[in-house]
Amino acid sequence: MYVSVIGGEQCSEEIYNMAIEVGRRIAKLGAVLVTGGRKGVMEAASKGAKMENGVTIGILPSVDRQEGNEYLDYKIVTGLGYARNVLVVLNGDIVIAIDGHYGTLSEIAFALEYGKPVLGLRSWNVGIKNFNNVDELFEEVESLIQQKS
Amino acid sequence: MYVSVIGGEQCSEEIYNMAIEVGRRIAKLGAVLVTGGRKGVMEAASKGAKMENGVTIGILPSVDRQEGNEYLDYKIVTGLGYARNVLVVLNGDIVIAIDGHYGTLSEIAFALEYGKPVLGLRSWNVGIKNFNNVDELFEEVESLIQQKS
Amino acid sequence: MYVSVIGGEQCSEEIYNMAIEVGRRIAKLGAVLVTGGRKGVMEAASKGAKMENGVTIGILPSVDRQEGNEYLDYKIVTGLGYARNVLVVLNGDIVIAIDGHYGTLSEIAFALEYGKPVLGLRSWNVGIKNFNNVDELFEEVESLIQQKS
Amino acid sequence: MYVSVIGGEQCSEEIYNMAIEVGRRIAKLGAVLVTGGRKGVMEAASKGAKMENGVTIGILPSVDRQEGNEYLDYKIVTGLGYARNVLVVLNGDIVIAIDGHYGTLSEIAFALEYGKPVLGLRSWNVGIKNFNNVDELFEEVESLIQQKS
Repeated sequence: MYVSVIGGEQCSEEIYNMAIEVGRRIAKLGAVLVTGGRKGVMEAASKGAKMENGVTIGILPSVDRQEGNEYLDYKIVTGLGYARNVLVVLNGDIVIAIDGHYGTLSEIAFALEYGKPVLGLRSWNVGIKNFNNVDELFEEVESLIQQKS
Repeated sequence: MYVSVIGGEQCSEEIYNMAIEVGRRIAKLGAVLVTGGRKGVMEAASKGAKMENGVTIGILPSVDRQEGNEYLDYKIVTGLGYARNVLVVLNGDIVIAIDGHYGTLSEIAFALEYGKPVLGLRSWNVGIKNFNNVDELFEEVESLIQQKS
Repeated sequence: MYVSVIGGEQCSEEIYNMAIEVGRRIAKLGAVLVTGGRKGVMEAASKGAKMENGVTIGILPSVDRQEGNEYLDYKIVTGLGYARNVLVVLNGDIVIAIDGHYGTLSEIAFALEYGKPVLGLRSWNVGIKNFNNVDELFEEVESLIQQKS
Repeated sequence: MYVSVIGGEQCSEEIYNMAIEVGRRIAKLGAVLVTGGRKGVMEAASKGAKMENGVTIGILPSVDRQEGNEYLDYKIVTGLGYARNVLVVLNGDIVIAIDGHYGTLSEIAFALEYGKPVLGLRSWNVGIKNFNNVDELFEEVESLIQQKS
């Protein structure tokens, strides 16, 4: 199973720490973490996943692997600019949006367009379920996984 | 000048008629109309632009020009699926969102991400100015154009 | 009908002049000319098409319309880098390759992959018919058009 | 280090076996194998890499992971159609072309356009070094790696 975590390159310390915890939980579930590979929420989730020996993949906008953060096992370069956002969500069986700005909004919208389950953690209110803390979020994630299997 | 009109493939008759009027106004301004080239709001805006002898370009998701509506002067095929949404907004100097569902939301988000001015006509409330009727919308469009020139 | 002309950004004066003539012939056939929108062969073909009042579309790699040459009626920006090469050939009913380097080779290959008819004018020898002058090339173009209609 | 192996979905048994050996050698070098993720040469190289416990990534044209062969550790879906060819070569520090048809040709061309080192094994003669057997090919691969480090 692949879980995509989307969120901004810039975030508060509180959000950063929540994103670490989200990454840890994803790794504990045995799922591969997919992100946009950059700083902020993407970095934090990847860091968390690596704490639990999870696998992390970053799908980068440029053609330069240097752009990726240090917690990525595999870096996929695209050269597509923001159009790579589509790829980030296409590669998740579940998409988790944490906080985030317009890039994140585009990813939520694409995920919904492609019929992916999208869960929010203090993210955009655009018709997705938003949770206030990581525990509540993962109750829902686990319930989703059980439905699928 | 290019103006992108984004909106759903399915819409009410009221929205369809408003989109026709939006297309007419864009053509009267001498601007090229860019849309995603399909039915609904995209078709209506293109129909309106042709009523005033404007130029209409449709940027299509598939590789098949047959997918385009009948009011397009030029059909650009992409084979990119929904990733073509990025191209639709990249090609507008101004982006007008009319009503719309998730595809439209992704386009609004991309437009904002790329720093484009985005105006809404009864569209998503995600930090853009939304208007209730075409007259109010075009007051703002004309004000934007004056600022640019 | 749309005809894509592909070729390098840099070319000899002889090739440039041949590309002008190719553009003129395309316009005289009433077809829309599609190119990658930049200098060299792309510019020359567009210049030729405009001499005969044809319509010219340039599909650009960056997000900046300034990148396009001065003989384009419509400039489509993509932000896809060289991946826009795919779009250039997808939009031609016939693809004409003039001279050219690796970018042109990628376009020939994509065109063949998508089953497009590809004709060469002093271009890559990779299984396409190559002609030595514009007259011979257009005998074949006209024969292709007759087969289609 | 990432090595991209490109080649056709259909190939002779001889080529298939050579591609297995290429995959094995890549894994023995400790490099990650990147392919287009489908059958034929892509499958064979991935199979070989897995024989040596290498890591294999497939970058798929559709949005459906089912499209990938059984020897992939990670499947990246793109929904870009043949435009995903660009991503396959962008992700290799070295690109190895084995046999192949037009899709492979487009990948060679893109790799050259992006300045990647491209080596051929009985592949297209378009300005790349072509080798007749795997041993000769890997002498060159190892020499390239030494130059880089």
